[in-house]
Amino acid sequence: MARKNVVKVHFLPNDVTVELESGRTVFEAAHKARIYICSVCGGEGTCGKCKVVLKKGQIDSKPTSLLGHDEIEKNYILACQARVLGNVQIFIPEETRLERSKILVGEESPEMGLLAHTKTDSRHFLIEPLVRKVFLELESPTMDDNVADHERLYNAINKKTNTASDRMQTGYRILKQLPTVLREGDWKVTVTLAYRGSTTEVVEIQQGDTSRNNFGVAIDVGTTTVVAHLVDLATCRTLDSEATYNSQIEFGEDYIQRIIYGEQNNAFGEIHNTIINDINNLISTLVKRNFINLHDITAVVCAGNTAMMHFLLELEPTRIRREPYIPSANFIPPIRASEIGIKINPRGLLYTLPSVGAYVGADITAGATAIRLDQADALSLFIDIGTNGEVVLGNKEWMVCCSASAGPSFEGSGVHNGMRAAKGAIEKINITRDFHVEYKTIGNVPPRGICGSGLLDCIASLLRSGVINKSGNFNTGLRTDRLRKTEDGYEFVLVNRVGAGIDDDIIITQADITHLIRSKAAIYAAISTLLDAMNMSVDTIEHVYLAGGFGNYLDVRSAITIGMLPDMPTSRVKFVGNTCVAGAKLSLLSKEAFLTAQQIASKMTYFDLMGNTKFMEKFMSANFLPHTNLDEFPSVYEELAAHSSL
Amino acid sequence: MARKNVVKVHFLPNDVTVELESGRTVFEAAHKARIYICSVCGGEGTCGKCKVVLKKGQIDSKPTSLLGHDEIEKNYILACQARVLGNVQIFIPEETRLERSKILVGEESPEMGLLAHTKTDSRHFLIEPLVRKVFLELESPTMDDNVADHERLYNAINKKTNTASDRMQTGYRILKQLPTVLREGDWKVTVTLAYRGSTTEVVEIQQGDTSRNNFGVAIDVGTTTVVAHLVDLATCRTLDSEATYNSQIEFGEDYIQRIIYGEQNNAFGEIHNTIINDINNLISTLVKRNFINLHDITAVVCAGNTAMMHFLLELEPTRIRREPYIPSANFIPPIRASEIGIKINPRGLLYTLPSVGAYVGADITAGATAIRLDQADALSLFIDIGTNGEVVLGNKEWMVCCSASAGPSFEGSGVHNGMRAAKGAIEKINITRDFHVEYKTIGNVPPRGICGSGLLDCIASLLRSGVINKSGNFNTGLRTDRLRKTEDGYEFVLVNRVGAGIDDDIIITQADITHLIRSKAAIYAAISTLLDAMNMSVDTIEHVYLAGGFGNYLDVRSAITIGMLPDMPTSRVKFVGNTCVAGAKLSLLSKEAFLTAQQIASKMTYFDLMGNTKFMEKFMSANFLPHTNLDEFPSVYEELAAHSSL
Repeated sequence: MARKNVVKVHFLPNDVTVELESGRTVFEAAHKARIYICSVCGGEGTCGKCKVVLKKGQIDSKPTSLLGHDEIEKNYILACQARVLGNVQIFIPEETRLERSKILVGEESPEMGLLAHTKTDSRHFLIEPLVRKVFLELESPTMDDNVADHERLYNAINKKTNTASDRMQTGYRILKQLPTVLREGDWKVTVTLAYRGSTTEVVEIQQGDTSRNNFGVAIDVGTTTVVAHLVDLATCRTLDSEATYNSQIEFGEDYIQRIIYGEQNNAFGEIHNTIINDINNLISTLVKRNFINLHDITAVVCAGNTAMMHFLLELEPTRIRREPYIPSANFIPPIRASEIGIKINPRGLLYTLPSVGAYVGADITAGATAIRLDQADALSLFIDIGTNGEVVLGNKEWMVCCSASAGPSFEGSGVHNGMRAAKGAIEKINITRDFHVEYKTIGNVPPRGICGSGLLDCIASLLRSGVINKSGNFNTGLRTDRLRKTEDGYEFVLVNRVGAGIDDDIIITQADITHLIRSKAAIYAAISTLLDAMNMSVDTIEHVYLAGGFGNYLDVRSAITIGMLPDMPTSRVKFVGNTCVAGAKLSLLSKEAFLTAQQIASKMTYFDLMGNTKFMEKFMSANFLPHTNLDEFPSVYEELAAHSSL
Repeated sequence: MARKNVVKVHFLPNDVTVELESGRTVFEAAHKARIYICSVCGGEGTCGKCKVVLKKGQIDSKPTSLLGHDEIEKNYILACQARVLGNVQIFIPEETRLERSKILVGEESPEMGLLAHTKTDSRHFLIEPLVRKVFLELESPTMDDNVADHERLYNAINKKTNTASDRMQTGYRILKQLPTVLREGDWKVTVTLAYRGSTTEVVEIQQGDTSRNNFGVAIDVGTTTVVAHLVDLATCRTLDSEATYNSQIEFGEDYIQRIIYGEQNNAFGEIHNTIINDINNLISTLVKRNFINLHDITAVVCAGNTAMMHFLLELEPTRIRREPYIPSANFIPPIRASEIGIKINPRGLLYTLPSVGAYVGADITAGATAIRLDQADALSLFIDIGTNGEVVLGNKEWMVCCSASAGPSFEGSGVHNGMRAAKGAIEKINITRDFHVEYKTIGNVPPRGICGSGLLDCIASLLRSGVINKSGNFNTGLRTDRLRKTEDGYEFVLVNRVGAGIDDDIIITQADITHLIRSKAAIYAAISTLLDAMNMSVDTIEHVYLAGGFGNYLDVRSAITIGMLPDMPTSRVKFVGNTCVAGAKLSLLSKEAFLTAQQIASKMTYFDLMGNTKFMEKFMSANFLPHTNLDEFPSVYEELAAHSSL
């Protein structure tokens, strides 16, 4: 047997060399070198994420439309499509290096504290995954016990799970294979039981005990980012997570634009396929990385705003944006994931959390579930900052909510160096009086951009240090070369390219600041409007839960300083992270949580802010730092005064 | 435009001539002549039922395997495949003339008396078809009433039908089309609601009021015959019925033979397809004859013995015939009819009534439902004589049942001139002391054979008139040329070919009589065994319900005379006809009836007669007319004594 040529691949900037057979791909070489390269398509050459630069040597590569002319001129290639024919040198650009998002993962996830096998606390949800695998050992039939196979199975399920026979359903295909599976499995079988409203469906029947192999995926289908968590449904452990920007961005930055695009171009099918593709890529990545069989993924729970849920299910979304703002459905029954093209077990189910209305979606019911607002004795405020800012005020007795177009700036979108909370993102920043910039990045690596929490800190710091004034404008008389004027206006250098993880300075521009102020103003105005509507004051709020994809960390004081949150003791405010995915995950693991989300959605009263003149007035007043009316922010007044006097 | 040639078709024996364009089929010509020809395939040339004889002229016909050599030599052709090219003369043989089976049809059907719109009598079932069409007029949404489309629909359904939202389910496709249908229908829509266990499914949504167009088919899937009733679900009227022999007969006369055939030849798929084909042919015939759109058939309810239900659903049946006799399922959940190839509305449902066990099937639970055994105060005996003879004893408190292999002779099968209860069948017969034969046929036409009720009468008459003795043997010394000896033994001529509607004498043979005696003995022995097991005597039975496809009429006294039924006042015995199709039809029209069948199936206790030595003894003793022990038949003893003395 002829030995294949061995070639060497030298990776930069890592300076690692590996040997492998000629004809293998650069992607495989990187894997061998333990260098992880972005890829969501799993090496199929369709996602275009694994761009690398061929520095020396020769490769064999198919033509691709995923590389631009510029890139091709610069010797960019797709690592997964490039076969190494001789010794080569490959440079992996920063953007291609795989960095795991810093999303809360694992048993320590806060939402996991809400789950229990027995009910010890009213805040606990009973663990009972929406799709369960139950191992059964049936008695084999005799003349004295000659119950039919199907009823024998139901009796065994009933004995083990306490599900009444008339509440179970079995599909025709399962029924057909039942006698064979029972006997070939020697009456030891595992049934996959799925919650389907008032019935439980036997989704699959397998020989032997496969109850350990049951996995689900909880997905936050955000307008800007899509986050997926892989959960072991047998142990309740979160195994892994992955995030990506929502590829629907090509149809518009916000969902209203996407609805308009879809309507004008008859493109709802395309918009739908785009998100399904993103989800399939995320699931595929998670499955491969964790060596899980796709067939063992039996459930997906999705949450997101109402428009996203409509795009996901290809439901008619056009009336969401037109008076009287009618969704096709708020409560969507479980369907087979395969029906909309999600690739998991072909009989696995897709659950979607319910929406409240056109502008308060499943992400909010997920969030309210994750913070257990339905069990709150004290008046609580829940704020979820994504592409929109939704605010819920209430307790276990009542809940009111509203939605403000905050824009995606706190998700890192539309901000010059904004990025989502991933490795290399500045998550914490402080600017001293002498314009020295201290910061911390996720993963403690050179900074590549700023995520939401960093941006909050940044605005607060710029204000405290006097770089910007209360209107958010740069103090142009400043004696520092960090502040500079460009064609597009002023900008402030946070990190010089020398210290940055990218080939450029990391800056914040006047436009960024204006964007961020508008975002925070919308949120503050929404909070004030709800309080006014209920005739309540800020003091009566005992708990504030702040959610969003800010990252792992958020400085509550910064949020108050810039006037996004009302002035209150920071101890009352809790940053709760991505509650959308947390609520989806709780539902995946607990039927009770799923039902709680339904109850919350039914219970919540929606206040419309569109055309609400009070809201508009409040929004205008909030377009300052912290606010035009400093009486509303006494502690910030003091804070800023103290800084000025230093 | 060239006018096509006009040709003449002269039909015999009707002596009717029609003109039509050359190139049309004989079948079309017959239709034009208002002569109805058998056809179950609807003119596709696949059923072979429309055989006619070409007497004169020329036709163009494709070769077919459905005609035998003999037939081709005799100029038989398939009417639907024969294109008329010139003037022709066509003879329509007796067997090809379409005659509607004399099945109870229409509002006067006895089971209809059990239905009511309001509950006035515990015996009444509330009318609520398993699949309903409900017309809804929804309020169009406004800013003050901005409920989502899906919830708006559910609210309207709830208001009209009192179905809770959490008990409803909607398929993904319906959900997708919902917003469009609602608006294009100007908020006036008709929903098709199907009972699916603990939930109600929205199966279809149509613009406007289509609630009048809702039809169902109730089917008795018998081992020997298949009977279908077409029911208007909006008015509860039975519109029409049709019957056919079960084509599975080619795989074996009884279901045990068919199971063995299927097992040995891996032919369960084929056996399944055969019954599906029969059912589709029946439905197609009913639909065409009544000008109904197939899409408006939304439900099919089937009942039959356990093996037939397994064949129907292609469920593994082999264990039915092997110890410990385990069906795949007794209670089969509703499935889409299209899943097993039944052609109705593609989202229409197939319901099957539940079985008790391997040998007491859905036909019996259907029957017990149709006679309302579940409400009986008095001790009742239900006997269903089909290919098997099943016996149920009980009242509203308890029910016991058993099954005896009676054979299909009372269905006209395996008897020389036996036929099912259709036009031309002798349903009533009397043989005088001087061997004069008086009879009555269904439809009052010349006799073509004898159906079950005629056979009962025939045996009783032969006994009374002394043509046969108590052992069932012909009295060979008889002075009549009606009794004659052939190669195969003795036979008695009931109708001479001159008076018959077929080209032969109508006779009863020694073998026929032996067959019929064995059948009646099995039934009597089954009744005795159940009574013994419960330690009860014949006197305690207040009602006897005798069911089966005997026809429209049955002489109870004849049944007692031959010893099929115990000796008792005939007033206690009621002939109830085909209770299998009646129970299926009640279920189609009343969810309550369907649920009652479930309860009956759960409640009934099965006694196994196989290997039961008491039963065998009783069977042997019953192989006489009326019985070896004449003490059990005092009134018959008297009757026969009186006849002898005449």
